[in-house]
Amino acid sequence: MTTLSPTLELACELIRRASVTPLDEGCQDLMMQRLAAAGFGVERMRIEDVENFWARRGGEGPVLCFAGHTDVVPTGPLNAWQHPPFEARIDAEGMLCGRGAADMKGSLAAMIVAVERFVADHPRHKGALAFLITSDEEGPALHGTQAVVERLAERRERLDWCIVGEPSSTSQVGDIVKNGRRGSLNGSLRIRGKQGHVAYPHLAQNPIHLAAPALAELAAEHWDAGNAFFPPTSFQISNISAGTGATNVIPGELSALFNFRFSTESSVEDLQRRVAAILDKHGLDWQIDWSLSGLPFLTEPGALLDAVSASIRAVTGRDTTPSTSGGTSDGRFIATLGTQVVELGPVNATIHQINERVLASDLDLLTEIYYQTMVRLLAE
Amino acid sequence: MTTLSPTLELACELIRRASVTPLDEGCQDLMMQRLAAAGFGVERMRIEDVENFWARRGGEGPVLCFAGHTDVVPTGPLNAWQHPPFEARIDAEGMLCGRGAADMKGSLAAMIVAVERFVADHPRHKGALAFLITSDEEGPALHGTQAVVERLAERRERLDWCIVGEPSSTSQVGDIVKNGRRGSLNGSLRIRGKQGHVAYPHLAQNPIHLAAPALAELAAEHWDAGNAFFPPTSFQISNISAGTGATNVIPGELSALFNFRFSTESSVEDLQRRVAAILDKHGLDWQIDWSLSGLPFLTEPGALLDAVSASIRAVTGRDTTPSTSGGTSDGRFIATLGTQVVELGPVNATIHQINERVLASDLDLLTEIYYQTMVRLLAE
Ligand SMILES: [Zn+2]
Ligand SMILES: [Zn+2]
Repeated sequence: MTTLSPTLELACELIRRASVTPLDEGCQDLMMQRLAAAGFGVERMRIEDVENFWARRGGEGPVLCFAGHTDVVPTGPLNAWQHPPFEARIDAEGMLCGRGAADMKGSLAAMIVAVERFVADHPRHKGALAFLITSDEEGPALHGTQAVVERLAERRERLDWCIVGEPSSTSQVGDIVKNGRRGSLNGSLRIRGKQGHVAYPHLAQNPIHLAAPALAELAAEHWDAGNAFFPPTSFQISNISAGTGATNVIPGELSALFNFRFSTESSVEDLQRRVAAILDKHGLDWQIDWSLSGLPFLTEPGALLDAVSASIRAVTGRDTTPSTSGGTSDGRFIATLGTQVVELGPVNATIHQINERVLASDLDLLTEIYYQTMVRLLAE
Repeated sequence: MTTLSPTLELACELIRRASVTPLDEGCQDLMMQRLAAAGFGVERMRIEDVENFWARRGGEGPVLCFAGHTDVVPTGPLNAWQHPPFEARIDAEGMLCGRGAADMKGSLAAMIVAVERFVADHPRHKGALAFLITSDEEGPALHGTQAVVERLAERRERLDWCIVGEPSSTSQVGDIVKNGRRGSLNGSLRIRGKQGHVAYPHLAQNPIHLAAPALAELAAEHWDAGNAFFPPTSFQISNISAGTGATNVIPGELSALFNFRFSTESSVEDLQRRVAAILDKHGLDWQIDWSLSGLPFLTEPGALLDAVSASIRAVTGRDTTPSTSGGTSDGRFIATLGTQVVELGPVNATIHQINERVLASDLDLLTEIYYQTMVRLLAE
């Protein structure tokens, strides 16, 4: 049996702790021990039922923070897994298999090992290193990063750069980094008609019939063209419902849920105004409850993106592509501190799926990329 | 206290039996006793859990049948009723109040009393009189009139004319008779898309977005213009549903239920073909389970409609208007025997509602109209 690299050793240890959201199962204790041993001041921040911690090492000057989550999504049916999800096996193709291998215990292990190596090699580094770790990224995410960031903001903690370990890569490690995320805006729409009997449609107003042309127009609308950093804003209706099941009753109301993923070219107010205009144009009696999940954020080219890109090129020979596509991440909360935020992690092809896995050697490359990024930003 | 007319006496007796579908509570026994006493051969036809009967009096020659139901719809909240729904009170305005007063125990009483009077006055009438009564018109209606009609068809029972006691009148008794009904065709539609995450719409196919323009076109379609007897065919979507409730998932499928009320200008095959063409035009992956509730039927001007119209004019001074609007009725089953079918009953303003009621004196007029119709068709 071959010896595992320090990153793979730690990744396996973390995967073996079945930390399904919001459980942490000792993952953070393990990380805190390692960081304390590397000279970090470690601060546990349990908020409601969520384990979080903040760790910091260094003095004045710019602060580079590693951020991530120890929680994982549920396994789904256990018998569908080739290897038990919490056993952390490396298979014949060299893939590290298990829940969290890609999202994101592999990244956490790479961060810890890279930081240990960096502080050993550069004990008098510039500025400071930090960790912001939560066990509730995959869940409601109310008492995780968002709440920790609020505390850090209150005490005016400095946070210049942040690398979030989310699996950003699509086919090879480092091929993509996320330098921003679209905003997410939810709407709960109700369209009122007038209930009646299908045999007497002139006495009723069918909200399905009234809504259909407006929904078709909303679905076809071109909201913006995006920009150099963001794809165009997209609109999706996720749920629609009207009727009681009875086949002879025209329902009195239709309800729908929709979501915008929006670029920095559209504001929340723009989108709300334009939806209202389309509904009004169709003469509908409507009501929308809006809820904003996150504003868009963007890290423009600068010190952090430069350091990350140069490190990826040095380690893998590849030019990385910054992207803002995909879902939201905890990066949106950290960016509110004025921090430059980049997401950089392993290949995301299998995240949240049965047989989640990641090329084991990619985690060693990722360790090296994180290491070199620290060298570029903080070496004395 | 004034003495009630024989029709009102019997109507009250029937209302006091709480025969909510499919219960009969002795209503039919009471009717059968009266008909047997009037010289009818009475045949009980219990089918599954539904009480029905068939009664006949007479010999060779044309047969006039009275048809109806003893069951009533539920009362709804009892305390919302001004008078208890099964007490059968005549209020200060001369309204007979109670569940079934209009739909259709008032008509049943009028039929019985009119027939008793007619056979007393015309014991050697031409042809035959008949009754076809069910206790499941307001329910699934599978083991009621439809099943009885099948038995009558098997034994080749002759049935030339039928008066169904459904409350056809809108503001004054006899102002409207129904000389047909539209067909009713149900469709259960499924439109398949491809499930995905709202953040990655290019990897999914949103069935709500795909369906909306097609549903808008179906809702706006002009199916036919109707004709002298039928209003235009109407299309109504009664139910629509897609999505699991999750706001970040694009659903994989949309389902909808719709109903056609169709005139004799459109065939079932026409409607099915045209719906398919619209769905295909929008490039949808769709499937429809069709179910035909009833073909349209029409009683054109002839002996029955002439006799009914002349009797209404003689009794009320009014010219009646034949109409085919409104919901389906058991008339559609009887019409399959080749029978001329007319629906004639009291004012339908309060049917299926709290405080169902009918002008008491209208039931006496209705008795007289039924009587004169028999005279016109069957007097020797
Ligand atoms: Zn993650
Ligand atoms: Zn009825």
